[in-house]
Amino acid sequence: MPVFQETSSAARDLRILPSRSLPLPRLSPKPGHCSSSEENREVVVIGAGPSGLFLTFLLAKYGITSNSLLCLDSKAGTLKAGQADGLQPRTLEVFQSLGIASEIISEGCHMEEIAFWNSAHSCTQTSNNGTRTREGIARTSFVQDVSVPARFPFEVTIHQGRIERILQENLSLYAPQDTIRRSHHFLDYTVDESQLEFPILVNYEYDLPDGSRRRGSVRTKYLVGADGARSVVRKCMGLELQGETTDHIWGVCDFVVDTDFPDIRKRCAVHSDAGSVMVIPREQIATGEYLTRLYVQVPGEVTRDLDIEVDKKAADKRRRGAVTIEYIFEQARAVFAPYQIKIKEGTTPDWWAAYQIGQRMTPEFSARTFDGVDRIFIVGDACHTHSPKAGQGMNVSMMDSYNLGWKLAHSLHGLTPCCGPGAADPVLATFASERVGIARQLIEFDTKFSHMFSGRIGPADAEAAAGLTHEEFLRVFSEGNGFTSGCGIQYEPNRLIRVPIESRLSSSPSGDPLCGSLMPGRRLLNVSVKRYADANTREIHDELPSNGRYYLLVMTSNDLLDKCGVSQSALMSAVDISQRFPAGVINLAVLHCLDERFEWADIPSAVKTTAEMRTYGLANKEDAYEIYNVSKAEGLFAVIRPDGYVGLLAPLSSSKLVDAYFRGCLISN
Amino acid sequence: MPVFQETSSAARDLRILPSRSLPLPRLSPKPGHCSSSEENREVVVIGAGPSGLFLTFLLAKYGITSNSLLCLDSKAGTLKAGQADGLQPRTLEVFQSLGIASEIISEGCHMEEIAFWNSAHSCTQTSNNGTRTREGIARTSFVQDVSVPARFPFEVTIHQGRIERILQENLSLYAPQDTIRRSHHFLDYTVDESQLEFPILVNYEYDLPDGSRRRGSVRTKYLVGADGARSVVRKCMGLELQGETTDHIWGVCDFVVDTDFPDIRKRCAVHSDAGSVMVIPREQIATGEYLTRLYVQVPGEVTRDLDIEVDKKAADKRRRGAVTIEYIFEQARAVFAPYQIKIKEGTTPDWWAAYQIGQRMTPEFSARTFDGVDRIFIVGDACHTHSPKAGQGMNVSMMDSYNLGWKLAHSLHGLTPCCGPGAADPVLATFASERVGIARQLIEFDTKFSHMFSGRIGPADAEAAAGLTHEEFLRVFSEGNGFTSGCGIQYEPNRLIRVPIESRLSSSPSGDPLCGSLMPGRRLLNVSVKRYADANTREIHDELPSNGRYYLLVMTSNDLLDKCGVSQSALMSAVDISQRFPAGVINLAVLHCLDERFEWADIPSAVKTTAEMRTYGLANKEDAYEIYNVSKAEGLFAVIRPDGYVGLLAPLSSSKLVDAYFRGCLISN
Repeated sequence: MPVFQETSSAARDLRILPSRSLPLPRLSPKPGHCSSSEENREVVVIGAGPSGLFLTFLLAKYGITSNSLLCLDSKAGTLKAGQADGLQPRTLEVFQSLGIASEIISEGCHMEEIAFWNSAHSCTQTSNNGTRTREGIARTSFVQDVSVPARFPFEVTIHQGRIERILQENLSLYAPQDTIRRSHHFLDYTVDESQLEFPILVNYEYDLPDGSRRRGSVRTKYLVGADGARSVVRKCMGLELQGETTDHIWGVCDFVVDTDFPDIRKRCAVHSDAGSVMVIPREQIATGEYLTRLYVQVPGEVTRDLDIEVDKKAADKRRRGAVTIEYIFEQARAVFAPYQIKIKEGTTPDWWAAYQIGQRMTPEFSARTFDGVDRIFIVGDACHTHSPKAGQGMNVSMMDSYNLGWKLAHSLHGLTPCCGPGAADPVLATFASERVGIARQLIEFDTKFSHMFSGRIGPADAEAAAGLTHEEFLRVFSEGNGFTSGCGIQYEPNRLIRVPIESRLSSSPSGDPLCGSLMPGRRLLNVSVKRYADANTREIHDELPSNGRYYLLVMTSNDLLDKCGVSQSALMSAVDISQRFPAGVINLAVLHCLDERFEWADIPSAVKTTAEMRTYGLANKEDAYEIYNVSKAEGLFAVIRPDGYVGLLAPLSSSKLVDAYFRGCLISN
Repeated sequence: MPVFQETSSAARDLRILPSRSLPLPRLSPKPGHCSSSEENREVVVIGAGPSGLFLTFLLAKYGITSNSLLCLDSKAGTLKAGQADGLQPRTLEVFQSLGIASEIISEGCHMEEIAFWNSAHSCTQTSNNGTRTREGIARTSFVQDVSVPARFPFEVTIHQGRIERILQENLSLYAPQDTIRRSHHFLDYTVDESQLEFPILVNYEYDLPDGSRRRGSVRTKYLVGADGARSVVRKCMGLELQGETTDHIWGVCDFVVDTDFPDIRKRCAVHSDAGSVMVIPREQIATGEYLTRLYVQVPGEVTRDLDIEVDKKAADKRRRGAVTIEYIFEQARAVFAPYQIKIKEGTTPDWWAAYQIGQRMTPEFSARTFDGVDRIFIVGDACHTHSPKAGQGMNVSMMDSYNLGWKLAHSLHGLTPCCGPGAADPVLATFASERVGIARQLIEFDTKFSHMFSGRIGPADAEAAAGLTHEEFLRVFSEGNGFTSGCGIQYEPNRLIRVPIESRLSSSPSGDPLCGSLMPGRRLLNVSVKRYADANTREIHDELPSNGRYYLLVMTSNDLLDKCGVSQSALMSAVDISQRFPAGVINLAVLHCLDERFEWADIPSAVKTTAEMRTYGLANKEDAYEIYNVSKAEGLFAVIRPDGYVGLLAPLSSSKLVDAYFRGCLISN
């Protein structure tokens, strides 16, 4: 019988709680109090939708302490139905690197294949009066939903409210519940030049239990508007969304389906003579049934009589108002014929809506105050709106926050260079430039994709007004996959994306970055590696988690065991460099390509001291050097930004480039 | 701008909450109230350690409603340090099938490789006085930690208190917080023949804030003792642990290590001339550091002088008491020499203890009351104790609960046949027979393994008293892997494990069941399959989740599309059979082996109606028929029990065997 003589030390709750990141070190003074009696926070986020909640979570995780952070939302609670439902592969990778992906991946619906359906023209006959008699739809092809390499090569659909719940639960690991104040309506902000530390005064109203509202205010250093397409923050900044609103009207409905349409559990693009429908399969719900989302095109003819109104906006509104759930299903039945489609008996739809496709964006995502500092930002729908058809909205919005979060945290913690009073933070300034570029691409892509989707499609059909062949449709769809998956996003060269002339390697990576070839501005593709210390096969994305730190990845060459070789000298330089900057902000990671076994004693001892659990060899199943297109004879330094994008590539002999990179984005010791 | 005209239906919290299983249907009357004024519950579990908590969670998940379930524990809170820390591959599979594995797998330490270290005899010299001068240790070999196919081919180590926290969090999805009452001390139980529905009266004491205790009692239908090696429930049943307590004493310590021993992040078996140590690497903790557990053998000589005492138990206790943390590290240093090993500066050990290896078990795991019904059960350490060396304790204990949970739920819900008053439930009766057999194997294996581990090991060393060569050690270790991993467990034929003579297939699976070949009594090995409806690649373990239901897996033959073939007839029979028993208790799953695509319309329509999301083809990367050793020309019926073990294999032409199987374990409609 094991008889334990237990002599336990003090309570160790930290051993049994969920894991949390260590906060970023803070070099700046702790936030003071403004001279007035108002409440103050370092960051105030307006809006607790996906982009606002995500930003609040990121800031808390990176170390913005609980009494420095506030998120105001006008709604009384989290979302109960509808709106966005799709997470793209890159978003899943980011969630995974933040440790918040598992429920979404295990419980969400994975879309791995798309079915394309078109008019069954082969069966078409011309009737007596010369009009076409529709004979239904036929499947044209299956296509892989995500055709680029990604850690999770599929889209996931799941209720937006569930994503918000997961974000809020994870926020609560780092920040108290009252970090989010609901039923709080942002009014406006003013800038107070007399308050150097907390110059922004945020005014709001909040609901009282008796239905009345009371005014309140909070002072802050930074204000972020994540308050949607009708953003009041944006209006206060003097910015507006620019672009067209086209007149395609769509109905959308989430429900439990009863149908004999065979591909109902796949994403489908159905183009019939009666119009277009997109099928988005959704997650299993508590009853054990599965949800389906349908996007149903409302043909222009239906509400044409309303077009005579002078006021276009009012006309649009009336046209949308003419869409009912009965109309949506009437139209769906027409498109799906000869297949039946209806709401499953005994169930009621979760949600339905009518909307109009439009692509608009604002030209700027930030505003400076009197002191020359970028202090007001907008993210998500406040910056860009577009159709939901390519499943981009929630993803691009959260990626805005992902780009801003660590930069704001670094700036607030005094980790960035030259961020004294009166000077713009050069790291923070890259947020707007990087994300405006992405939004432009989004708008362009969505315009093309939506118009295309709303048009009729038929092979070599002279009558099809939109004149789009199925092959053309497929081409646009596939070419857009790098963009829509989020995996092909490329940030242009700037302070954080360096492509120095001196770094041209003799065998510089030149392969397709979508397939993993390293390139500054692109995200590091996930690969499997084998950790040296414990022989664990690991995914490199899990090894470089998103905790606000930079990673200096040294891919050593095959001379690793040569004490006078470039690899050992590069490793020592890397350790050196990481120690010139605030402790723990640059994490060293080592990847080697040797087949033979070696001992810790064979390589510089500083590697074990600083990177014992971040030293890897090649995994049995894949060769990281090959995938990253790095020469084993030469090796490489790769700087990975806190958001997983490659910041710099440099030869192992050019550690000075690495040092220069970090001097551009971090304060040195 | 998308302008949503939202018309949301009622609040749908269920869409955003974590997924929960549907409760099992209940045919028995809802629990009544006993005539007396006492509180009553359908099940009372004593002990909230891993086995008690796990059982409580399972019962709640399977549908034992919140006011029918109670768990009493004498401790004031969850565990803070020490005790068990290893989860075996089969336990991980079970956790995964229950949806509770993700934090453990992502945050725990994976042991993928074991390093064996032995005396560096090649350097041994004989000194002048004839005694051996120790020259340290040398690595003999690396061995894969888990050498059998498993979904997670590694062991995971993580704090027991964290596992308990995860179990409790998941319990709270199904049952109110007060289902677990802490600081409640079980005293005894009595059986009251006048109370037919709740015949067991459980007496306990509970702590009051002032330090005093008050008595209380609760009536129950079933009492389960999960109250550890010193189980009071077991004592009340009149049972005791039988077997030897050997005199090996070991020290164990959890701490942050500072060492130059190169394999410290791997599981290591170190046998030096100075004694034996086992290294168990552990998870990363909140500081970013990693824990290490050391098991250090205390040589008999140290406390030999105490052996003269007459009272063996008292002597043992004094010998263990002589072990201090200083002693543990002194001994560790001697074994690890020439490597250094110490507690990392600035840290204190989490926990340390001294214990004695022993293998004991009780011959019975259940007791019947006056009415002939098995109403009292014991699980876990209450039934069997053994050394922690093979990492079995927590695993075998929780698997006791896993075996009992669904049987108890089926019985309580009236799903089992002939469970009228006064008759033993034949399904429930299999718990004791199945688990006693496993416990016997555990005791036998652990006796062999522990003795071996405590002995000295040296290649062809005439002086080594224990006379065990490294090769012999390795052989026992590897042969035991099917057992220690939990993946090789085999239940003997009984009502739930049928091996009927008529079921001998002409090409009956005859391969190695450890490698997946189907065999009644063995767990279904995980394989990847491709779901037909959505083209998702899925893991079959996720598709047959542990929700208290049976799965009838029809592996169709290659004549699937032949309307007169055996496959279609088998599918229709399967649907028929599943409808002869309570709705939803038998879930149909279909696996086909066709290469060509087909449409739903090509197979019986009942398949889509009843198993649309449980119909699969072969995955691209592996062939389930090959792994399961099933002929594609013949196909197979496989009944999978609610705990994932194969209950029956039958030819597709013998649906009557399937019907007979279910009549043996379920009530028919």
